[in-house]
Amino acid sequence: MEGEVVWVVERKEYHPVENLVYETIFTLANGYLSLRGREEFSNLTMKGSYVAGIFDKYLAQVTELVNLPDPLGFKIYLDNKELNLDYLPLTKYYRYLDMKQGILNSLYEFNVEGKIIRIESRRFVSRPNIHRFGIQYTITPVNFSGKIVVENCIDTTTYNGYLDPHNKIQHYRVLRVEDLKPGVSASVKTHDKGHIIVLANAILAKDHKGENVLRYRKFRQIGDIPQEGYTIFLTEGQQVVIEKYGVVYTSRDLESEKLKDKDVVDFVREKVENELNNFIRTGFESELKAHTEHMESVWKRMDILIDGDELAQQGIRFNLFHLYACAPDDQRVSIGARGLHGEGYKGHVFWDTEIFMFPFFLYTLPEYAKNLLLYRYNTLDGARKNAQMNGYKGAQFPWESADDGLEVTPKWGEDYLGNPVRIWTGDEEFHINADIAVALVHYHSVTGDDQFMVDYGVEVLLETGRFWASRLEYNEIKDRYEIRRVIGPDEFHEHVDNNVYTNYLAKWNLEKAVEYYEWLSEKDPIKLEKLKTILGITEKEVRSWKTLAEKVYIPRKEGEKLIEQFEGYFGLKEYEITEWDENGLPKWPKGLDLTKLGETKLIKQPDVVMLLLVLPEEFTEEEMKVNYEYYEKRTMHKSSLSPSMYSIMGLKVGDTHNAYKYFMKTLLVDLEDNQGNTNNGFHAASAGGAWQCVVYGFGGMTLESDKLLNFSPWLPEKWQSVNFKINYRGIPLDVLIKKDSIQITSPSEVELKIKGERKIVKPGENIFRL
Amino acid sequence: MEGEVVWVVERKEYHPVENLVYETIFTLANGYLSLRGREEFSNLTMKGSYVAGIFDKYLAQVTELVNLPDPLGFKIYLDNKELNLDYLPLTKYYRYLDMKQGILNSLYEFNVEGKIIRIESRRFVSRPNIHRFGIQYTITPVNFSGKIVVENCIDTTTYNGYLDPHNKIQHYRVLRVEDLKPGVSASVKTHDKGHIIVLANAILAKDHKGENVLRYRKFRQIGDIPQEGYTIFLTEGQQVVIEKYGVVYTSRDLESEKLKDKDVVDFVREKVENELNNFIRTGFESELKAHTEHMESVWKRMDILIDGDELAQQGIRFNLFHLYACAPDDQRVSIGARGLHGEGYKGHVFWDTEIFMFPFFLYTLPEYAKNLLLYRYNTLDGARKNAQMNGYKGAQFPWESADDGLEVTPKWGEDYLGNPVRIWTGDEEFHINADIAVALVHYHSVTGDDQFMVDYGVEVLLETGRFWASRLEYNEIKDRYEIRRVIGPDEFHEHVDNNVYTNYLAKWNLEKAVEYYEWLSEKDPIKLEKLKTILGITEKEVRSWKTLAEKVYIPRKEGEKLIEQFEGYFGLKEYEITEWDENGLPKWPKGLDLTKLGETKLIKQPDVVMLLLVLPEEFTEEEMKVNYEYYEKRTMHKSSLSPSMYSIMGLKVGDTHNAYKYFMKTLLVDLEDNQGNTNNGFHAASAGGAWQCVVYGFGGMTLESDKLLNFSPWLPEKWQSVNFKINYRGIPLDVLIKKDSIQITSPSEVELKIKGERKIVKPGENIFRL
Repeated sequence: MEGEVVWVVERKEYHPVENLVYETIFTLANGYLSLRGREEFSNLTMKGSYVAGIFDKYLAQVTELVNLPDPLGFKIYLDNKELNLDYLPLTKYYRYLDMKQGILNSLYEFNVEGKIIRIESRRFVSRPNIHRFGIQYTITPVNFSGKIVVENCIDTTTYNGYLDPHNKIQHYRVLRVEDLKPGVSASVKTHDKGHIIVLANAILAKDHKGENVLRYRKFRQIGDIPQEGYTIFLTEGQQVVIEKYGVVYTSRDLESEKLKDKDVVDFVREKVENELNNFIRTGFESELKAHTEHMESVWKRMDILIDGDELAQQGIRFNLFHLYACAPDDQRVSIGARGLHGEGYKGHVFWDTEIFMFPFFLYTLPEYAKNLLLYRYNTLDGARKNAQMNGYKGAQFPWESADDGLEVTPKWGEDYLGNPVRIWTGDEEFHINADIAVALVHYHSVTGDDQFMVDYGVEVLLETGRFWASRLEYNEIKDRYEIRRVIGPDEFHEHVDNNVYTNYLAKWNLEKAVEYYEWLSEKDPIKLEKLKTILGITEKEVRSWKTLAEKVYIPRKEGEKLIEQFEGYFGLKEYEITEWDENGLPKWPKGLDLTKLGETKLIKQPDVVMLLLVLPEEFTEEEMKVNYEYYEKRTMHKSSLSPSMYSIMGLKVGDTHNAYKYFMKTLLVDLEDNQGNTNNGFHAASAGGAWQCVVYGFGGMTLESDKLLNFSPWLPEKWQSVNFKINYRGIPLDVLIKKDSIQITSPSEVELKIKGERKIVKPGENIFRL
Repeated sequence: MEGEVVWVVERKEYHPVENLVYETIFTLANGYLSLRGREEFSNLTMKGSYVAGIFDKYLAQVTELVNLPDPLGFKIYLDNKELNLDYLPLTKYYRYLDMKQGILNSLYEFNVEGKIIRIESRRFVSRPNIHRFGIQYTITPVNFSGKIVVENCIDTTTYNGYLDPHNKIQHYRVLRVEDLKPGVSASVKTHDKGHIIVLANAILAKDHKGENVLRYRKFRQIGDIPQEGYTIFLTEGQQVVIEKYGVVYTSRDLESEKLKDKDVVDFVREKVENELNNFIRTGFESELKAHTEHMESVWKRMDILIDGDELAQQGIRFNLFHLYACAPDDQRVSIGARGLHGEGYKGHVFWDTEIFMFPFFLYTLPEYAKNLLLYRYNTLDGARKNAQMNGYKGAQFPWESADDGLEVTPKWGEDYLGNPVRIWTGDEEFHINADIAVALVHYHSVTGDDQFMVDYGVEVLLETGRFWASRLEYNEIKDRYEIRRVIGPDEFHEHVDNNVYTNYLAKWNLEKAVEYYEWLSEKDPIKLEKLKTILGITEKEVRSWKTLAEKVYIPRKEGEKLIEQFEGYFGLKEYEITEWDENGLPKWPKGLDLTKLGETKLIKQPDVVMLLLVLPEEFTEEEMKVNYEYYEKRTMHKSSLSPSMYSIMGLKVGDTHNAYKYFMKTLLVDLEDNQGNTNNGFHAASAGGAWQCVVYGFGGMTLESDKLLNFSPWLPEKWQSVNFKINYRGIPLDVLIKKDSIQITSPSEVELKIKGERKIVKPGENIFRL
């Protein structure tokens, strides 16, 4: 059983046009600070540095994650020629992400008119000290002695919108640029929200004897860009090692300090300077060691080993690595649709987090699952304002969420000719509220964290329940509650009535709100009283939701196994998918008018299949099969979230061939750039979907209604085994699945099921035949 | 007789590494504003925009020509992809400088994933309105309809020192960045001298019907960079024409306005905005027409036609074009060693101007020759301060001169290992003072402009004479005046005594000072009295210079034809040049220690030959030949000024083969980049030298001591004829030299000599057999 060799993602050749995709793939982040994996020595780069939670609107259409000043600025000049990958002959190039340790490694060898200079670098963004990042450059003058000039700077001309040039915006203005002697620093402030961000970095450099080699320091300001330049004298064949120490703080990190406005900049600046000094005192290697040890401990909890399939092994680690890179230690932020890896979807948080990414965290690193839920709790006020502004009650979580829970979905987009197109998701895609409720209840079931439900969870369920109660529309003729004019997960169809996914989950949300109201009245009646006071809610109101839930219309015909996605779907125009592109994704059928997709049965992603996955106990295996087959033929997979759901459902209904295909599509969405937009960020939901494919799909793990885990696995032919970790009620289980057995290693006794049969797992290794 | 086809310099293929050389070659300047010929659509560029006379020191070692904000910023995005020459496939590329009209033309055709977009551009820097420049982009979507985004900006992150990164400096800070609605503007201020520079530009764009096509304007500030973005909808095959209007003013242009400091920015800003509006009102095509008509009229006065040698024809026009580009309409500026075309020698003015470039202007465009001399007159105060600081009297013109005549030669440079090396030229290269005196007297002889001598010329001669008088050292033993510890034109030898070039010219300068003192006492005794008052000088002092001049030691042995460059030169170590590089320039002899060049007979450029050229009447032809042959073997041509002098002297002594070789070397120094540093600016002195080669060398023109022009031509074999213009005492002569005749066309009667024989030229054509 070896997956140990597949710890790296490589870039073996340098073609500048591929830079932006690799920048996403090589992004390093620690849940707080993110640095896109850009080549310092190229001009073709989308400089991207982000801090989770630093959003601003200013002249943009909606609030967006702010692209901060770039602290990676570093140039080397040999004979006054800039070492630049785009223009100089390269005798060697190799770059790889070491996912095990969380280090981005590079090797460049330039030929500058016959002089060969080799540069090896290691870059990390520290996880144990989230304000720190470090880069080490080892420079070897292979065949000459001479001098180089190095330049360390912070670029304050970065902006949002590199990939959308007409909407370029710099969200900050520069307050101060400083010479730290040594080191440089820039203090900036965002326009609207007034966040202060201070960045600083400094370099040290030593020869093979450990002696300083930096000479003739010059600090310069070019525009608002601070930079320090040094001369280094190189001796043929002798290495020089440059260490770059970087630090970032923001006023948001220090909100608890209750400072007066005018002191904030000084305070953040001082924090940064102290942190930089401490970092230098710690030393590059010590910090890196702490970081890699941390990464090792995390991998022990989240790694998946796939024996017999190197590509899948590499892919799954890639996805877990980047999911973890986004995991916040901060309860005020969540994970955007493109992680912290780019500006796709403006850093906004969607249902992607709760439905696609959340299970991974819940079963492996539950403390982060908790933080993701707390983000929703902490943005309840915004959600309440949304409900109020739209004429509803309770809390209406936004379809797109930034820092405060207010709806930030843009109202208008552009078609390919630049004509304005109204975006309706922010107005109509209500299911996000129930998706959050699903995650909450799931969290409680798996962790048994009652205190969390007491302190936060019940409040969210009551407020979302209340929202749904106010959203339902009563149909007197049919004596039922309906939800009209919505968008389900399939966004090709707007303004539809009684979308089955939405209605099912609304009903479920109402039931869970009542259930947890009762649960809290037993668990902590005092807390419930306080909550009722805060929410201004009565027992009568809550109990009324039970009746409402019973009467929510579920558009499902008696005796019919095939479920209609929404009222009227079956009457739409049929198109058959007959061609697939080089990535195996469907091509648009010929003769289709792309502006009238809503009039066809083609779907972007599968509403009904999603529903069957979220609420499996309500449907038979036969129903699953019928619906899977019907909708698969009509799914364009225009969402990267789509293939993984088909993969899991395929396994449930026995379509194992497609399962692997869809799994690989999901797994490699970024590594193959098979959606063509990896440049704009990491597909975080796909990554979560990939984890679900392995554990829910191939591992066949379900959480049964009795809250026991059940394993009913199936492995692709070439997989010898798959091994994953499951944290169930605080117990870390190691699950090793082979073709004919499941081995579960546990530190303590735990009950679970194998293919539906209850089993007691004893402390230590337990082998179950299949 | 056709040279008409050779009006262009082309770049046929795009290799980014060649960009910097072509930027120099394609620079457009009008004596005031210079814009390096950079590719807007490449990242490999040394952004360079300069205004003559805008110098600053700040943190630099010495005062330097300031690299201003770059107003050429212009980007085009198709499908949100930047059209970039470095990264996109080019289906067509062609760029050429039309020297006749002074227009830089470009053709680009990009392939953006199958979409072919063609961009043709024309750029000019207006000569009739020196504050204006214009660019026109004609955009054709060859095989698609779609939208593009265009971005117009002024880059305020430019700096001096692109080619010397350790000494990067931004000499200005940004005062104001403005949205001109439409248009953008930036106001900056230099650090030390406080010059205000305001740049503005705006774009207009029209379809084939003349209707505006710019949509969705957005003004944005990124750092301190103002930019405006527009969307343009393109229809397949239909051209859109974008016109960019640019304007620059500086506070230096408005010094006569006597404004209070605080009003200056507003005043300059207003000037710029008005000028921009006027420019737009004039229209791109009308301004361009005025510009090309101006260029045509200038070519009529300065063109040289070489029949039978296209390369020479192109080369000579190239040199004249760029010399004229530097010619100032401003009497406070002169022409730097690298023109206005780059930062080589920091924009400083050397003897290059008076000795190498001046004759071209004097004989073709004498109004500019006058301005160049007035620059020296206007910097007399600085020169007086130099003399005072060094313990001398009168005016000591600086070896390197910037805006005020103070010495700005750096004291220290670096060897190739970065070790500091003392630069002595600013301390010891005194001959510049006499070089200026030579140009003055030459000006007077050719133009007969007595008023100029009365108003300015005599004062300069008296002050330089006075300087030399104080610089001479009396050797009591030998009863002679010596000049010890100097550097002659050959800078390999420092701290030498009695350099023949220096001593000869010092003596000559003293004689001329006395002569012109006497001349003025007759011409305008009142002016002389005033001058004596201002200079605090007496007749006795001036007359004493006559005696000094007689006793200046000229190190020339009785009966010896070979002249020793300086005392002791003949005793130095001999090295023979035996190898030449691919440019035909000598290679360093083997075994030579480059740090001890002063101990060898190798010379950088020829002192003695220079002297023979400057004062030909003092030497016999035999002496010329002996010295030419002796020193040629020892000349490394490490100055680009060197080959042209050998070319002219070669012709004088009958070495016609080398004459052509050296001429072509001089002529093509930039077009072939044969010194390897054209990236850093235009070799203006070489260009002047090339003109001298044609007129003095092949044309055999000399100004005899009787102040008559004498022609004694010799043509290279392949030349059918050469035709040049000579302005002699206000009379524009057209001189057409063929192998067997000289044809001189004159509007009025003039006396001159052909091969030493006096001839009367009648109005109209005159043919003289050779």
